[in-house]
Amino acid sequence: MNPDIRRERENATFSTEILTNILDGGPEKTKRRREIESLVISDPDFQHEDLNFLSRSERYEAAVKKSAQMILKLREYGISDPEEIYCYKSVMKGLHHEALGLHYVMFLPTLYSQCDAEQRRKWLPLAESFKALGTYAQTEMGHGTHIRALETTATYDPSTQEFVLNSPTVTSIKWWPGGLGKTSNHAIVLAQLHTQGKCHGLHAFIVPIRDMNTHMPLPGVVVGDIGPKFGFDEVDNGYLKLDNVRIPRENMLMKYAKVEPDGTYVKPPSDKLTYGTMVFIRSMIVGESARALAKSCTIAIRYSAVRHQSELRPGEPEPQILDYQTQQYKLFPLLATSYAFHFVGQYMNQTYHRITGDINQGDLSELPELHALSAGLKAFTTWAASAGIEVCRMACGGHGYSRCSSLPDIYVTFTPTCTYEGENTVMMLQTARYLVKSYKQASAGQQLSGMVSYLNRPESRLQPQPVSARPTVVDTSDLASLVEAYKLRAARLVEVAAKNLQVELQHSKSKEDAWNNTSIDLVRASDAHCHYVVVKLFAAKLGEVGDTAVHSALSTLALLYALQGVTQHSGDFLQAGLLTVPQLSQISQRLKELLAQLRPNAVALVDAFDYRDEMLNSVLGRYDGNVYEHMFEWARKSPLNRTEVHESYHKYLKPLQSKL
Amino acid sequence: MNPDIRRERENATFSTEILTNILDGGPEKTKRRREIESLVISDPDFQHEDLNFLSRSERYEAAVKKSAQMILKLREYGISDPEEIYCYKSVMKGLHHEALGLHYVMFLPTLYSQCDAEQRRKWLPLAESFKALGTYAQTEMGHGTHIRALETTATYDPSTQEFVLNSPTVTSIKWWPGGLGKTSNHAIVLAQLHTQGKCHGLHAFIVPIRDMNTHMPLPGVVVGDIGPKFGFDEVDNGYLKLDNVRIPRENMLMKYAKVEPDGTYVKPPSDKLTYGTMVFIRSMIVGESARALAKSCTIAIRYSAVRHQSELRPGEPEPQILDYQTQQYKLFPLLATSYAFHFVGQYMNQTYHRITGDINQGDLSELPELHALSAGLKAFTTWAASAGIEVCRMACGGHGYSRCSSLPDIYVTFTPTCTYEGENTVMMLQTARYLVKSYKQASAGQQLSGMVSYLNRPESRLQPQPVSARPTVVDTSDLASLVEAYKLRAARLVEVAAKNLQVELQHSKSKEDAWNNTSIDLVRASDAHCHYVVVKLFAAKLGEVGDTAVHSALSTLALLYALQGVTQHSGDFLQAGLLTVPQLSQISQRLKELLAQLRPNAVALVDAFDYRDEMLNSVLGRYDGNVYEHMFEWARKSPLNRTEVHESYHKYLKPLQSKL
Repeated sequence: MNPDIRRERENATFSTEILTNILDGGPEKTKRRREIESLVISDPDFQHEDLNFLSRSERYEAAVKKSAQMILKLREYGISDPEEIYCYKSVMKGLHHEALGLHYVMFLPTLYSQCDAEQRRKWLPLAESFKALGTYAQTEMGHGTHIRALETTATYDPSTQEFVLNSPTVTSIKWWPGGLGKTSNHAIVLAQLHTQGKCHGLHAFIVPIRDMNTHMPLPGVVVGDIGPKFGFDEVDNGYLKLDNVRIPRENMLMKYAKVEPDGTYVKPPSDKLTYGTMVFIRSMIVGESARALAKSCTIAIRYSAVRHQSELRPGEPEPQILDYQTQQYKLFPLLATSYAFHFVGQYMNQTYHRITGDINQGDLSELPELHALSAGLKAFTTWAASAGIEVCRMACGGHGYSRCSSLPDIYVTFTPTCTYEGENTVMMLQTARYLVKSYKQASAGQQLSGMVSYLNRPESRLQPQPVSARPTVVDTSDLASLVEAYKLRAARLVEVAAKNLQVELQHSKSKEDAWNNTSIDLVRASDAHCHYVVVKLFAAKLGEVGDTAVHSALSTLALLYALQGVTQHSGDFLQAGLLTVPQLSQISQRLKELLAQLRPNAVALVDAFDYRDEMLNSVLGRYDGNVYEHMFEWARKSPLNRTEVHESYHKYLKPLQSKL
Repeated sequence: MNPDIRRERENATFSTEILTNILDGGPEKTKRRREIESLVISDPDFQHEDLNFLSRSERYEAAVKKSAQMILKLREYGISDPEEIYCYKSVMKGLHHEALGLHYVMFLPTLYSQCDAEQRRKWLPLAESFKALGTYAQTEMGHGTHIRALETTATYDPSTQEFVLNSPTVTSIKWWPGGLGKTSNHAIVLAQLHTQGKCHGLHAFIVPIRDMNTHMPLPGVVVGDIGPKFGFDEVDNGYLKLDNVRIPRENMLMKYAKVEPDGTYVKPPSDKLTYGTMVFIRSMIVGESARALAKSCTIAIRYSAVRHQSELRPGEPEPQILDYQTQQYKLFPLLATSYAFHFVGQYMNQTYHRITGDINQGDLSELPELHALSAGLKAFTTWAASAGIEVCRMACGGHGYSRCSSLPDIYVTFTPTCTYEGENTVMMLQTARYLVKSYKQASAGQQLSGMVSYLNRPESRLQPQPVSARPTVVDTSDLASLVEAYKLRAARLVEVAAKNLQVELQHSKSKEDAWNNTSIDLVRASDAHCHYVVVKLFAAKLGEVGDTAVHSALSTLALLYALQGVTQHSGDFLQAGLLTVPQLSQISQRLKELLAQLRPNAVALVDAFDYRDEMLNSVLGRYDGNVYEHMFEWARKSPLNRTEVHESYHKYLKPLQSKL
């Protein structure tokens, strides 16, 4: 092991194992996770060449191969608990995505939830045996967020008892579904249902798109890959153009809405049924934010411990770059953010399961808050993590730009979370809608509970006042006091947004215009709300930590997270009269002290995330710190080095030389 | 043409042509630029398949081919003016880099400036005829920014009158030089010169690395490509390991320092000779920041004009997404930033040429300021542009993630500017060193001139005072007044940094520790200084614009740029007592008005950048707005669509199905 990184580990003030257990949710969970990880990592069938050395077609093929093997292995090992499958997959795919992802995540669940009894009998055996390989085709080239505007049509023809599916325009071509391009032979297609001369809105249809024997596209189906992307090279995100494609009436998913043989449309009893899934996926993404950022911090902090550069003291050897205050200021707040988001992810997961229990018992009261929270936190955490990964990459200097660092891969794989499952700005506005509604309820005297209870009167009756006239309430070295400050900041920004909206309503042509003209303020209010929730949950987590040494390290991180946010939004806190100018200067000073305090524990804090080298897949982030030898070894395997002289020399350079 | 985008152009309030001329520096320059662009764009030899569809080896080959052709074409057309060559190349390479880049940018210029007369006679003909294909090998695997620590050695052996070059460690392997991996047969190698038992520090040596006839690596030379990166797929950034490689004494570049045949070392007269080149390259990068961001804004704003989404008013068609306030708030400040950086780039270019003239006449007085300014502005503009490109990409939703948007390419091609030619944080600290020095001079009563004259006493004697006690000096609707506010903010932050440094000096073990412990404040001071310079130069440029309509549009942009910066750093302005809390609320309101004011001119403002479709290479950014048809066409050409059924189906999916 590299002596620098060994020394870092020796100097840590706490046990990483205890912290790892906290992150996993208990020692048994750590143990089981490691067992599953070892299953994958030691499996010779999953060894493969670095994907960065392959062409896109080869990468896709590698992904198909891995997906197929995984299905067999999971059966062989008898792993069936969803959490364990999730763990197994997340090791197996490493940074890369699986070819059959949508089959699991969307195709099967949609069949389970929306097939009627007869459909279940037909489709589940086909899908569970992978005879029917499926995906979920919703988004169209011209339509994303606003699904009501989807253009694909399914018109019922009672004479043959079939639906006729069409993509009437270029913009209606289905676009983006994973696994649609080359892998799937079926798609669940969202289309506008027309029957008896009337449109009944969006419904889901099982559409066979490729022959189940030859895999050739069926007549009327134009299907293919949408081309190279920023990342997700392994995934065949696809397009689907339907030209008078006929499917039997029974291929409409009929658990709720129905079309009878004569074409009579039968309405579904309720249409709030997919609410839960969306909330679940967004909550999961919060955890993904934590993991992507934790991996990036692991790489950047370990590398910063072994990289030496420049001079701190004349005549002395080059210091570890982790000793530079500016490097600490880049990385340690992100490390704190990783922990914060991890605990928020745990909370969301627990809350989701608790509320799901309530819902099953008919209690829907907490769902709106969870829905609003999952939307906002999805946006808040993915934006922060996406930007943070890039800070980690650039903190590794030139080598961060090499694919051997893995940081480019982490970034391109993670950054789509800002867009998919609800575009972030749209998400923030959804949360804002809930906040404004809650604000109005509180103004009308209702008592709110949950995360928005800070809007209750009279405590939250914040009147903007000149800074000098307000009492200073915040103790900047006390986390509880900072949580209070974040709460009051959120309360003020929700109030500002709500009031601005009120003013706009008096001037605007419509409610919608007023909303649009206030949307900057609304997003800001949501952002402040989410920030408050994150700080609050991080602080709350500390109460559960028994080990003194770990508690101390986590407290430093939590304080750093809170104070860093205050300096970044210092204008808000000053405007709200929550801080004074001299306090802000103290905070700058305090931040520097916290960085110095964290310095000896930085490597241990990333070690506690417990990412094995095979999962990080990063030369810079190696546990043993032996970066340079392995970088050289990796480079020598690069495809361009397969021959000493590249053929372009003979084709272009030599002829050029002879012409001049 | 798409009717939406046609309407945008019809509604613009100014002539794009006049604005384009201002950006180019005059109508004749616009004309000549377009002529050169047409030469490349209409040249059938430069047509090629979309690089995104090629493997890395194919992309490298395409780049070599284009580079070779370009050399012949430039001779054929008789283009020799450096600015025109730059223009020709920037079209030719589009978003991608040329294979022989380093030959032009570093190998030839180094030969020109550091060869003695005899060396010129030998090497210039070889290099100018591309018989010697060269690169510049400075950076090593373990050493970047701090070049004094480079480890490669060149030991003089008087018995054979040769230098013996060695890479004594893994960390000393040359790493990153462009064109080193496969293209070059020579490298200028920076190495520690040892002669007569003494080390004389870094010197440059011409090292043949490949046989000039066979292109095979020479004995003792291990050379190759460093492997795939985030971008720059076309470029063979390389490694070079030297094992007792002997070169004649005459291969040391001897214009300044020398080693005589007996091994006697002769010192160079001065070592400030490369100062100018660095300043020049960093100044150029400021212009690159403007261009990269301008391209990204062009793509995102045009696409936002043709993309329709969601509902603003019930029952009405989906609005253009450019009508959403949140979309405007993402894009218009970046549009303003593109213009700001463009004018800063023009200023840096002019200043560089003016000062170079002065230097030739022996006047070096302005060089330190330009050096400090180019370092800070390089960091300030590249950070802003790099983040801004990603905002543009995400503002295009899912389609921004497709390679057909070109935004991923723009990002990965541009983001290394944050690291190369001086890592950004290091750059900011260099500027800070100049600011602190200037502050001390001013404190000692010296009168400063230039951009730092705001540090002069007594005007700059800013004492932090409670907000309430300070007079409000800023008129937030007046650009000149805002420039003043930025100036005072910078003055305050320089003072804070200088004073904190002073305090640290009293506590720290050394000057260097004190500097390190203040570095967060120092970076912040530099950032504020650069921000002031940008706002100031943007405001100054308005004075040169005669056309009323263009002046009006640019004034709106400048005000938006200035006010947006104030809201982002509102804490600084409040802390410095430059703004009151009510003023900040007014600014939020004013910002929204400016967005609405810019809305009708947004497309015209990006049209004025005058990027032809062939240079943008973006389906989303097409001038005609016909996005969707061309996206479909592009996708169908994707390599994964060359066969209807991918071979992995037969290899893995069909066998899987038969096993279950």
